[in-house]
Amino acid sequence: MQEKITLAHGSGGELYREMVNEVFLPAYSNEILCELGDSAVCTAGERIAFTTDGFVVNPIFFPGGDIGRLCVCGTVNDLAVSGAVPQYLSVSMIIEAGFETEKLRCICKSIADTASEAGVRIVTGDTKVVEGNKADGIYITTSGVGVFTADRKPLGQKVVQGDVIICSAPVASHGVAVTVARSGMDFSPVPCSDVKPLSGVVDALLSSGAEVHAMRDPTRGGVAATLCEWARDGVDITVDLKNVPVEASVSEICAVLGLDPLQLANEGVLLASVAKKDCAKALEALRNYQYSTSAAVIAEVESGNSEVWGITDIGTKRRILMPRGEVLPRIC
Amino acid sequence: MQEKITLAHGSGGELYREMVNEVFLPAYSNEILCELGDSAVCTAGERIAFTTDGFVVNPIFFPGGDIGRLCVCGTVNDLAVSGAVPQYLSVSMIIEAGFETEKLRCICKSIADTASEAGVRIVTGDTKVVEGNKADGIYITTSGVGVFTADRKPLGQKVVQGDVIICSAPVASHGVAVTVARSGMDFSPVPCSDVKPLSGVVDALLSSGAEVHAMRDPTRGGVAATLCEWARDGVDITVDLKNVPVEASVSEICAVLGLDPLQLANEGVLLASVAKKDCAKALEALRNYQYSTSAAVIAEVESGNSEVWGITDIGTKRRILMPRGEVLPRIC
Repeated sequence: MQEKITLAHGSGGELYREMVNEVFLPAYSNEILCELGDSAVCTAGERIAFTTDGFVVNPIFFPGGDIGRLCVCGTVNDLAVSGAVPQYLSVSMIIEAGFETEKLRCICKSIADTASEAGVRIVTGDTKVVEGNKADGIYITTSGVGVFTADRKPLGQKVVQGDVIICSAPVASHGVAVTVARSGMDFSPVPCSDVKPLSGVVDALLSSGAEVHAMRDPTRGGVAATLCEWARDGVDITVDLKNVPVEASVSEICAVLGLDPLQLANEGVLLASVAKKDCAKALEALRNYQYSTSAAVIAEVESGNSEVWGITDIGTKRRILMPRGEVLPRIC
Repeated sequence: MQEKITLAHGSGGELYREMVNEVFLPAYSNEILCELGDSAVCTAGERIAFTTDGFVVNPIFFPGGDIGRLCVCGTVNDLAVSGAVPQYLSVSMIIEAGFETEKLRCICKSIADTASEAGVRIVTGDTKVVEGNKADGIYITTSGVGVFTADRKPLGQKVVQGDVIICSAPVASHGVAVTVARSGMDFSPVPCSDVKPLSGVVDALLSSGAEVHAMRDPTRGGVAATLCEWARDGVDITVDLKNVPVEASVSEICAVLGLDPLQLANEGVLLASVAKKDCAKALEALRNYQYSTSAAVIAEVESGNSEVWGITDIGTKRRILMPRGEVLPRIC
C-alpha cells in the first residue's frame, strides 16, 4: 500500500478495499467484521446500551496513550457506567490526505490492543478522506453497543441523600498530559494520561454487592461537571478536597498552570454514588482491582439546593460550579 | 445562544449543555435521548444490525438535500439492506469553530425530519469543536442499530446463478448533484440528489414474498462497485446498459463531464439480487411504492469467472471494473 493516504483511499473503489484489507482487517480481525456487510449482525438481548463519541485529540500520540486507545476507552467507559457489558464497537475515521499510512497502522494496533483488553470487538467501520487542511491528521468516531446480561440492569443517574461518592483513581492526569504534550512545555517526570478501560473497575464495584445509585466517567468538564449534573436533582454534594486523589506531579503542574484538577478531563476514572452503608465493601472491592487501587470517598450527598461545595485543606468552603467556557480544547 | 459555534461549545461545560438544550434536544426530542446518560438504553432483541458512516460531503447543502438528511439516510439504508428494521441512531458531530449556529439548527431539523420519515429515533450523540481550518464546516458520523423483528432475518450477500438484479430507482443523481453544486457549473434543470431512506423500499420488496438473495445501496463506487463485489463469489453479472434507469438530465451531464453513471454515488437506490422466478412480483411491489416507481431489471447472474460485463446500446460488450482511484471525493 502507498506510504500516504490519498483522497482516492476514500473513494469506495479498489484503493479503499486495499486499505481495508491491508490495514483494518488484519488489525481488528473477527468473524463478524469479516462479513464486510453494510451492517454488522450481532447477538444482543432484550435491552442494549448504545453510545457514540467523537475524538479530535491533539496531539494524536501523547504520553500514556494515543487517539486509538482513547477512542476505544471513551466508548467502552460510556457503556460500562450505564451498567451494560460492553460488546461491540464501530470505528469511523476521517483522515486528512497525506496522513502517513504507518501512523494509521499504529493507531489501528492501539485500537485492537485496547479492544482486546476491554473484551470488545470492532465489528463495523467506515473511512472518509478529506483534503489537506480540512482536518488535523485524523478524527475518529467510535460508537458502541453493550448488553444487559442476566445479572446486569440499566443504572440510573439518581444520586440519593446519604450516598457517598467514590472516586476510583487519581484525577486530572489525562487533561494535564495532553495539555503539556501539546504545549511543548518541559516537565519531569512527564505526566501520563490515565486512559484505560473501566469495564473491570465497574465489574469489581457491581460484584461487591454494594448498592450503587449512579456511575459516570468524568471526561470533558471533569469531576466538577459530573458532580454539578448529579446535584441538579435537588441534593447538595460536599467534596472533601483533601481526599480527592491527584498524583503529586499532576497537582504541581496544575498549580503552575493555574488549572483546577476538578475541571480537567479524565479517561480512566470512575465516579460512583454508593449507599453509605455499603461504602466499606465498595472500597475494598475497588482497591483490590488493578485500575482502582487508590479508590477513595471524596464527597457526601445531603439534602439541599442543587449546589456542590468543596471543603478546602484549611477547612473553608468554596462553591464548585459547572465549568463554563473553554477549559482545554481538543482534549479528547 | 451565540450566533457562532466556539471552541468553548466543545468543552463539556455550561456552554455545551446550552447547545444541547437549545439546539439538539428540541430537534430530536424523544424519551430515550432525554435521559442524557452516557449511553442510551434501547429495547433490542436476540440479534441486531449495527453500522456506522462518516459524512464529509462538500457542499453541506446541495440541491435535493443536505448533510443532515444524508447522514440519516446513509445509516438507515445500511441497516435496511441488511434485512433489519432500522430503529436507533447516534449523531456525532465535529464542528469547525465559527460555524453559524443557524446552519447547525437547519441541519438538526433536517436530521429530525428525515429520522421521522424513516421511523428511527436519535437516541444518543456527541459534539466536538475544532479550530478554524481544522475541518470544513461540519462533519457528521452517524451509527445505527436495527432490530430483526419476528418476520425479518439477516440477509447475506450471496447472489446466485439465475438471479436477476433489480435497480429500484434512477442512478447517479446524488453524485452528479453534488459535483455540479460544488463546481459552480450552470446546468438547467439543476440536478437533484436522490437522497432518501430506503426502509420503505426494502419493506415493499420483502413483503412481496420474492426470494431475495442480496440487497445493497450502491453509494461510493456506485452500481459498478456493488456488482463487482457481488461477482467476486464466482459468478458473472451481465448488465443490459439500456435498462439501467438514469434521468435524462443526469445522463446528459455525465456525457458532458465524461463521468460513468455506473461509478457515481447513489443515496436512494436499492440493488437487489432476486430469484428469476420471483422477478415479476418483486417488480410489481417495488413499482407500487413511491420511492421505487421506476424499478427495473438491469442485469442477470450467470456462472462464470467473477466478471461484470455491460451490453451496450449497439449490442457490444464492455468489461465493468471496480472503480480505482479517485472518482469524486467528498461525495458523502
